[in-house]
Amino acid sequence: MTVSTQTTVTVLGLGAMGRSLAAAFVAAGHPTTVWNRSPGKDADLVARGATSAATVEEAVRASTLVVACLFDHGSVHEVLDSVGEWPADHALVNLTSTEPAGARELAEWAAGLGIPYLDGGIMATPAMIGRPGSALLYSGSSAVFQTYRETLEILGTAEYFGSDAGRASVVDFALLSGMYVMFAGYYHGAAMVRDIGMSAEEFSNRAASWLAAVLPSLPAAGAQIDTGDYSEVLQPLTFTKAALDAIVSASRDAGVDLDIIGPVRDLVDRQIAAGHGAQSSERAFESLNPRPRTAA
Amino acid sequence: MTVSTQTTVTVLGLGAMGRSLAAAFVAAGHPTTVWNRSPGKDADLVARGATSAATVEEAVRASTLVVACLFDHGSVHEVLDSVGEWPADHALVNLTSTEPAGARELAEWAAGLGIPYLDGGIMATPAMIGRPGSALLYSGSSAVFQTYRETLEILGTAEYFGSDAGRASVVDFALLSGMYVMFAGYYHGAAMVRDIGMSAEEFSNRAASWLAAVLPSLPAAGAQIDTGDYSEVLQPLTFTKAALDAIVSASRDAGVDLDIIGPVRDLVDRQIAAGHGAQSSERAFESLNPRPRTAA
Ligand SMILES: NC(=O)c1ccc[n+]([C@@H]2O[C@H](COP(=O)([O-])OP(=O)(O)OC[C@H]3O[C@@H](n4cnc5c(N)ncnc54)[C@H](OP(=O)(O)O)[C@@H]3O)[C@@H](O)[C@H]2O)c1
Ligand SMILES: NC(=O)c1ccc[n+]([C@@H]2O[C@H](COP(=O)([O-])OP(=O)(O)OC[C@H]3O[C@@H](n4cnc5c(N)ncnc54)[C@H](OP(=O)(O)O)[C@@H]3O)[C@@H](O)[C@H]2O)c1
Repeated sequence: MTVSTQTTVTVLGLGAMGRSLAAAFVAAGHPTTVWNRSPGKDADLVARGATSAATVEEAVRASTLVVACLFDHGSVHEVLDSVGEWPADHALVNLTSTEPAGARELAEWAAGLGIPYLDGGIMATPAMIGRPGSALLYSGSSAVFQTYRETLEILGTAEYFGSDAGRASVVDFALLSGMYVMFAGYYHGAAMVRDIGMSAEEFSNRAASWLAAVLPSLPAAGAQIDTGDYSEVLQPLTFTKAALDAIVSASRDAGVDLDIIGPVRDLVDRQIAAGHGAQSSERAFESLNPRPRTAA
Repeated sequence: MTVSTQTTVTVLGLGAMGRSLAAAFVAAGHPTTVWNRSPGKDADLVARGATSAATVEEAVRASTLVVACLFDHGSVHEVLDSVGEWPADHALVNLTSTEPAGARELAEWAAGLGIPYLDGGIMATPAMIGRPGSALLYSGSSAVFQTYRETLEILGTAEYFGSDAGRASVVDFALLSGMYVMFAGYYHGAAMVRDIGMSAEEFSNRAASWLAAVLPSLPAAGAQIDTGDYSEVLQPLTFTKAALDAIVSASRDAGVDLDIIGPVRDLVDRQIAAGHGAQSSERAFESLNPRPRTAA
């Protein structure tokens, strides 16, 4: 514990997320240095015991663990390309949301400069950092992950996905895509019920319970998708098509655009057009043309 | 209790759902009559104590509460148009998934024949009937709902949405649309992670936890949508656009079609194009062109 709390940590970027990360390190007793492009965002952290660095270079020299939480891939380069000499053995953990390709590019760039690099994705909002439900996904240097795991777990659960720095980002973005699509489905439903005068807030409570009740069905769907065999049928595609046709028609009657529900029906329709109507509805997954399964 | 268990119930349609409904009524001690177009589906129910009717007319005469659970709106007419004389006071509760317009048509048709009509939507799978989590939504005759509420609650929670027979169906289809869109988002994510060799089943467990963790954010989104004022910003549209652009690009790199995620990004892009980039991301709801809010 003594060793762990003595790990020095720098946080680059004090947006909503960076401030929350830095506050968690400070609260856990780590000597914490912070830096932000625009001034003023460090005041609260300094009041709690953090040290403010005047330059990126100073911030990077201050700690063995350097956490970047900037806007995007481009801003990480803008901030770090200017660092003249990277201190030996100081590790860079990049928690900026970065595409898989961007994470791989940064890992190569870091390797060229001898910087131990770990990429991470934050599955949490700033308010959730350090609380139950906060999960962080990592890939890249396993040495960095192992050395700083305990410190990183201050932020939330820490899971390592392998040495390819882009892997955590793929999982991160896949989960985020599920979330944004789910929100769009909620918007669609909320627009439908507005036609009968139900508030979006009332609908949100119903939708949250209903969606929570169906989420446990995902693993069975996943298991079937993994086999690639859709002949064991829980709900045939033709049944799902009837439901989606009716939803599309009811949406039109309620004056709601079909931008979101139309493409969902199309996934089903394409499988039926290919002659698979009697097979299980999970086959709609194949309409997205996923790559053939490979071993991990 | 004695009165309630003596309510006679008929179930028309012994598909997966109709069989489950009938089994629940039998298990609760109600004298239950069943009918199905094709023979043979009643065997198990008869073994448990149900009575099999040879004709629809006989089935309708047998019970004061007649529950229809057929394929669609058209099949309800195909089955019931042939009934010569509807017994006075026998109520029809239609649990066939029917569009709002279809439910309203059936309510008018029933009114013309003096049949007390209640329309219902089942928010459950056959296996969930009679268990916690099973919810049924009703609208139409409030007299039918009040008279048979206790009996209907054998199937799951019973909620009444008003005398317009189409209202329950709007809520039903809005919730179903949320579900099907959520499934499509899960398919998209599962296709992305396949690119790094993660199984759809492993992803489903992660997605189920992650989506469950974000569902509690829906009510705040709904409350903002109801105000129509998106100036109080949790996450600005520009931030969501950056995330969705990155997801789209990562999806393309992973070889996944953009059919599902593309339209979600478009909802956001349209609001930004209209000059609202600094406003809250919930404004994407407005891209679906919902009708102006009216009182319930
Ligand atoms: N907020 C969330 O819910 C959440 C959840 C998961 C992941 N994330 C990820 O965490 C990262 C930060 O998010 P946030 O919510 O903290 O965003 P934010 O509040 O918008 O903050 C962005 C930060 O990046 C800095 N920045 C932007 N461009 C820069 C540049 N060219 N050079 C130097 N600094 C630059 C900003 O500095 P200035 O103050 O000088 O503008 C600010 O500190 C993002 O990648 C985001 O995707 C956020
Ligand atoms: N299964 C679910 O998870 C679920 C959930 C919620 C709501 N629902 C709704 O419940 C209803 C029934 O679903 P299900 O799962 O039981 O479907 P199913 O297993 O496909 O059964 C369909 C039933 O409808 C009958 N039928 C179809 N066309 C007919 C016609 N023209 N004349 C007479 N009978 C006809 C079939 O009779 P035959 O045996 O003669 O073909 C069968 O009894 C549907 O509206 C469905 O949307 C189902």
